[in-house]
Amino acid sequence: MLPVLYTPEHRQHEPGFFFVAGNIHPAQERIDRAERLRDAAVDAGCELVTAAEHGLAPVAAVHTPDYLCFLEDAHRRWTEVPGASAEIIPNVFAVPGLHHGYPERVVGQAGYHMQDLASPIGPGTYAAALASANLAADAARRVISGAPAAYAICRPPGHHAYRERGGGVCYLNNAAIAAQQLRQDGRRVAIIDIDVHHGNGTQGIFYERDDVYFVSIHRDPLNYHPYFCGYAQERGAGAGLGFNLNLPLPADTGDDDYLVALEHACRRLHAFQPDTLVISLGLDAHENDPFNGFRVTTEGFRRIGQRLGRLGFPCVMVQEGGYDCEHIGANLVHFLDGLTGSLRA
Amino acid sequence: MLPVLYTPEHRQHEPGFFFVAGNIHPAQERIDRAERLRDAAVDAGCELVTAAEHGLAPVAAVHTPDYLCFLEDAHRRWTEVPGASAEIIPNVFAVPGLHHGYPERVVGQAGYHMQDLASPIGPGTYAAALASANLAADAARRVISGAPAAYAICRPPGHHAYRERGGGVCYLNNAAIAAQQLRQDGRRVAIIDIDVHHGNGTQGIFYERDDVYFVSIHRDPLNYHPYFCGYAQERGAGAGLGFNLNLPLPADTGDDDYLVALEHACRRLHAFQPDTLVISLGLDAHENDPFNGFRVTTEGFRRIGQRLGRLGFPCVMVQEGGYDCEHIGANLVHFLDGLTGSLRA
Repeated sequence: MLPVLYTPEHRQHEPGFFFVAGNIHPAQERIDRAERLRDAAVDAGCELVTAAEHGLAPVAAVHTPDYLCFLEDAHRRWTEVPGASAEIIPNVFAVPGLHHGYPERVVGQAGYHMQDLASPIGPGTYAAALASANLAADAARRVISGAPAAYAICRPPGHHAYRERGGGVCYLNNAAIAAQQLRQDGRRVAIIDIDVHHGNGTQGIFYERDDVYFVSIHRDPLNYHPYFCGYAQERGAGAGLGFNLNLPLPADTGDDDYLVALEHACRRLHAFQPDTLVISLGLDAHENDPFNGFRVTTEGFRRIGQRLGRLGFPCVMVQEGGYDCEHIGANLVHFLDGLTGSLRA
Repeated sequence: MLPVLYTPEHRQHEPGFFFVAGNIHPAQERIDRAERLRDAAVDAGCELVTAAEHGLAPVAAVHTPDYLCFLEDAHRRWTEVPGASAEIIPNVFAVPGLHHGYPERVVGQAGYHMQDLASPIGPGTYAAALASANLAADAARRVISGAPAAYAICRPPGHHAYRERGGGVCYLNNAAIAAQQLRQDGRRVAIIDIDVHHGNGTQGIFYERDDVYFVSIHRDPLNYHPYFCGYAQERGAGAGLGFNLNLPLPADTGDDDYLVALEHACRRLHAFQPDTLVISLGLDAHENDPFNGFRVTTEGFRRIGQRLGRLGFPCVMVQEGGYDCEHIGANLVHFLDGLTGSLRA
């Protein structure tokens, strides 16, 4: 039976807003996402299990000390700024050409450590992100201990977070943390990211490494978040050249075209021969998702799961996006059913 | 008599807001800034002159085609985005780690080409920025033609703008445009930036060049805009190593301490032996400025002008910041009086 990792700690993170084209909208990354996923997994017969506490070490293996210290007390310091907003929203960003000195003031540090206006930091954000990362680390430990697969209901999600920079509703990169745990056990690791948004943070973390192969299928960033990254020509750098594969697809891609791209990805994953596959399991490619990226159906998620399961690699699954609370549970269950069915076969 | 360049074209740029610590505030970079400066200069006996039209060439010598094309129709395209705000405010920024693919959609391009939430783009922003840059180019041409000094009332200001990135209420880098005009005439050029904020854009444009020496005196970015840049250790790179000098000073620096730093700067400027000095003339180091950086007095600006005039180099002066409309005119007149008095001596 598939172990499913969940913790109510995520409830401490309740972002109030995000920006779209200059206007403030209610946050889409809501508490009930994780609860819907939990309920659907339980209803489908998965085993809800509690993570052991792995401490800060798995997180520190991926993120920088400056960034973790920032996250730890950023909100408290922000509230001491006269006239500051309730949640942290940076107003100046460390874009290229700024030479990346590291300011002392929290307003500057916020701009150093964040990449957008989608990821407010509230009083419970860091605790929730740590608990989310702990689930990912635990899922990796379970697979290291012999489970054929494990699934972590990570909230907040992680794949847009870099070593020292959050964004895209992500703070700590759960998939990278799981992958690094596997690496520390000597495993050969590939990551496939099926979130509709490019996994720019995960790509960034492993971009110059050849020991973790990163593959992402996502909507073309030419006209979609994260815009600056996720293009096909990004193939890795230095030792990592050739170990990064982006498969951008057009808006409104449906099941059949998605499966063609997935087939391409799976050939490459097979050729890499990982010991373990980390799946950045976004469910926002669904046709009803509010981010309007792709038109994958609920049945399409079963086919995606089946194809990945047929690779035959032990799988650590980490929840990423997926914002349509009405369908997110069914999409998850169909994916898991497809994956575990073909993993067993 | 000092030629002073002004055009009413700046009135087309009327930003509505900027962000401070997560909240929206009225813009400080207002239309009446330029009008106060014009009136004060005229009252002090300067000669108000009209710039010739220099076309796009001086601007294109500094900024990239992508950026200029973006500025040209960004606002029109923005208004076509469903639910977009009245002025452009990006929501995702091209921070390091994002690999700088260039998106098609204006929301992404806005994040590529801007660095903060201080610089909204409205329908007349580009026209005003071009007119402002034209004044700087004209001031440079006048000095090339033999004037000992010329002063351009540039609005919007420019020193936070990079080759392809605006920000900090700046869009086109007027000082860099003036410097590049002088370079194209074969002149050896130094730039001194006395705005209270570090001239990060100007630094960035010339950072790897040894033919333009850049010196900036500004409030320490550890706890002040632009936060990531302006540190003393930034000395240039490649061929430009040693041709960039930052003199960050603590909050509330007054006249005497400022003049000590200026003396240091002037020794270096003398040692570089430029044919022409470009002055990025911010007046926001004043004790009453709303950005609360330094405590320079109106009389202090005269002393600063005197010291720079004593260097004896022909001067192209380009207006940068200065937001206290009550004192900005007097501060300008004292500076110009000090400078022209000692230039003549």
